Order: sequence, then C-alpha cells, then structure tokens
Amino acid sequence: MKYKRSDQEFKGFIFDLDGTVYLGEKLIPGADVTILTLRDMGKKVVFLSNKPLYTRKHYARKLTNMGIPTTPSEVINSSYVMARYLAEVSPQAKIYVIGEMPMVDELRKAGFQITENPGEIEYVVVAFDRTFTYEKLNKAYQAIRQGARFIATNPDRTCPYEDGEIPDCAGMIGAIEAVTGKRVEIVVGKPSSITVDVILNTMKIPPENCLLIGDRLSTDIVMGKNSGISTALVLTGVTKQEDLKCADIKPDYVFDSIGDLLQLVTVS
Amino acid sequence: MKYKRSDQEFKGFIFDLDGTVYLGEKLIPGADVTILTLRDMGKKVVFLSNKPLYTRKHYARKLTNMGIPTTPSEVINSSYVMARYLAEVSPQAKIYVIGEMPMVDELRKAGFQITENPGEIEYVVVAFDRTFTYEKLNKAYQAIRQGARFIATNPDRTCPYEDGEIPDCAGMIGAIEAVTGKRVEIVVGKPSSITVDVILNTMKIPPENCLLIGDRLSTDIVMGKNSGISTALVLTGVTKQEDLKCADIKPDYVFDSIGDLLQLVTVS
Repeated sequence: MKYKRSDQEFKGFIFDLDGTVYLGEKLIPGADVTILTLRDMGKKVVFLSNKPLYTRKHYARKLTNMGIPTTPSEVINSSYVMARYLAEVSPQAKIYVIGEMPMVDELRKAGFQITENPGEIEYVVVAFDRTFTYEKLNKAYQAIRQGARFIATNPDRTCPYEDGEIPDCAGMIGAIEAVTGKRVEIVVGKPSSITVDVILNTMKIPPENCLLIGDRLSTDIVMGKNSGISTALVLTGVTKQEDLKCADIKPDYVFDSIGDLLQLVTVS
Repeated sequence: MKYKRSDQEFKGFIFDLDGTVYLGEKLIPGADVTILTLRDMGKKVVFLSNKPLYTRKHYARKLTNMGIPTTPSEVINSSYVMARYLAEVSPQAKIYVIGEMPMVDELRKAGFQITENPGEIEYVVVAFDRTFTYEKLNKAYQAIRQGARFIATNPDRTCPYEDGEIPDCAGMIGAIEAVTGKRVEIVVGKPSSITVDVILNTMKIPPENCLLIGDRLSTDIVMGKNSGISTALVLTGVTKQEDLKCADIKPDYVFDSIGDLLQLVTVS
C-alpha cells in the first residue's frame, strides 16, 4: 500500500467486477463489507465491466445475490457504453451486431434498427461473441467493404473462464481486420475515454475525487491514468505483485484485496 | 508482351487456376488450346491453387470437364502442400484442423491423426474455412496456449466469389493471432518456398526451365521471383494493366490472357 495522495478525499469509487469484487461466482472476502461501508459513508459507488455478454440487470442481480444490493443504474458495462456512444454520434444508425443476444437487446432497447443487409448497414458493432461464425464474418466484411463503420465493445484478448481463459472480443476484431485490411476504428470499453465519459456522467463527481479499483494494469489502471482518476490495483485478479516490478504503468495504490481498501478512507 | 528472356527454353508450365485458366465455372477462351498445344509439344504442365476447399481430384475433374483432360497428380493445391509438408517435418503429428472436410480428408489420407483434445494437439492447421466458429477458435487457442504449433494453408485475405469476394484464410489466421498474441509460424501455400519445393518435386524440371503463369502479383509472381522461376502475368484475373505501373514487382512477361501464351513458345 502506498499513500501517494493521502490528502485526497475520494467521493466516488469505481469498481471493476471480475477479479476485483468477485472471481467467477465467488465473492472476494471483504468485498461486501467494503462496499456497504463506503455507501454508509456517503460515497458514490459504481461497478464497471468490459464484458458485453450480460445486461446491466444481470450484474445488478448477481451483486445483490452476493450481498451487495445493486440497481442496474449502478452498473456500467461495454454494451451499455456502446449503446450510449451510438445514441450520441448516430442516433438513427442501422447496425449489424457481431455479439450475443444481450448485446443486440441493449442496442434494440436504445432504439437502433438491427439489420443484416450489407447495403444498408451503417455500423458494424463487434463484441465478445461465443456464437461467432464465418457467416457473421462475411456479413461484417461485405458491410465494411461497402462503407460501414467498424467499432467494437472491448479490446480484451481473452476472458477468464473456469480454470483458464477463452477467446474474447480481440478474436472477432482480428478476423475482421485481417479480411478487410482495415483497423477497428473505435473500441468503446476500458481503457477508452468513451467509457470514462459514461462513468463521469453517471457519477457526477469530478475525476480528481474518484478512485478506480481494478485488477488489470492494461485496462483499469491505464484508463484511470489517462483520465485523471486515481487508481488502486488489487492483486486478486490477473496482476500479481511481481508483475508490478517491470510494469511501465504504476497504480497510485496497491492492495492485496478489496478487503483492504477501507484502510485508505479511514487513514486518509 | 515482353521478350525479356526470349532465348530461354521453357520445359515446364505451372498454371494458376482461378483467374488464369478459368473464372469460376467459365473457361477463359483459348486456355484449352494453349494447354493441349503445350502438352503436344512435350511440355510438362501442372496446375496450382491456393484454395484448400477442394481435393486435387475435384480440380482434375473440373478441368477435364472443361476440355483439359487432367489427372489429380497434375494438380497442386494448398491442402496437398500442407499434407506433404507435415509428412516431411512431423509424420506422426496429432493435428487439429480449422478447415472444411476435403482439408481434413487430405490429412487423414496422409495418415495423420485428427484430434480435438487440446492437450494432445501438436499442430493447429488453419485453412480457409466457411464453417469456422467460435468453438473452433477456442479449441485452437487452448491448443496453442499448451504449446501446439500454428501453421496455415494460404495467406489470402479474400477469395473471389460470384460478383464479389468472401473472407479467406486470413480471417481465421487473424482471429487466432489476436487471441493467442502469436503470429502464424508457417503458411505453406503460395508464395511460400514450401509450395515451390512441391512443384519442383512434381515437375522434375529445374526452376530456370519453368514458367509460372498467374493473375496475382502478390502470390504467383512473387513466388516465381523468389525461386528463380520465370513468371507470366495474365490480365484476366485480379491484376489489371494499370496496377502494373505502380507495382514493386514486375513479371517477366505480361499477356492479356492465357490464350496469348503460345506466342512465347512459338516466337522463342
């Protein structure tokens, strides 16, 4: 633990989910007490996930069932950020989605027209998709060749799963980049500033009074650094103490676990 | 047409197929007369395709039906080159195939054990696969993460299809590269020297007495240049006269069509 900015008062806490609050289906010890205590202290709490596989409602229910009562409005994930982003830049856009049903539903719910006709597709939205097929790749290719924009939810190479990892959104992006010869134009999820904008709009707290708590240097900590939000790395996920020695990027604080986070607010 | 090396006697003729001998299901005018005349003159002829979608028998039958009687032994395609390559470097290899049935059959016929068990896969063989799915991507990822080699049939981004193009092997390679963070180790098809070795072994004619006729600068003509085989570009496929002006690579000869090729052997 470091006290680099111990004089700072944090009013908003942004928690990454998998690897930070829980591991798969298991709450990380102390997560519930930490979050409930922060709320009792009047702090604002939001939860953040790069996964476009589930709805915000799903995460709210999962957290509630784990002893952290949560509403969908306290959850920000990359499918929600995508819907918000598109609503701002192209509210009438016709969209083709490489993604699972909750991703499609999120965009439908936001009023977008989903189409499979390459000639009318304006945006190809690419998400982590365990139902990805050659047919989807071909539809994306035909649409992009005809001028559709090419944007994605999250840049993650793999996603933790049971005792290992499975291919994440980078696989779908990589396939499309390779056949179109074009790079993905925008990736809205962590560490994008688009996600930061959605967080700050939700929090309504200036970045300098926010703390982002996560387990990944390349998404959570990078995003905090880029946006003036302080960062706390927890060692319960993918990053281990030894990874920090040779890392280019340094979080403001390092904790063994979310369970130790209250030291910060009670000490500072 | 150029006569850069008109003193040269060509004994072996290597013909690319789609865009050179035929376009889809249509023979290019004069292809039959050209090839039959070359054979009558005692020239050796082989046919070459980067497509791993069909068997050599399929191509032989297709050419025969188009008026160019051909045996499977006169056809070299990337699935055959892959089977030959693996038979040489790892004849007992356990293989996982991302590819269609003729690709799998080619490897089975060559005696390889096909397996889907990531723990025992020694080679992940990636081919143009219109039945590609997330499940296949995940199997390839798990195998490569556990140390399997990662090789592919052909580097093509897209493949001509009806009035347009569809994603080719580069899509499958790109997905796997993105999730594993590893580059494909070997691509055996054109313009690889592995394909050249198979051609020259089949032809039994020194490279300096061979002419490679194709429609693509980046595969056909590059491969000839790299291997000391003379090259003739035909303008019936993807490359047009105006593409030649700014191209880094220059074929030895340029013909409007395969129908003009006999000028070369009768003039020289």
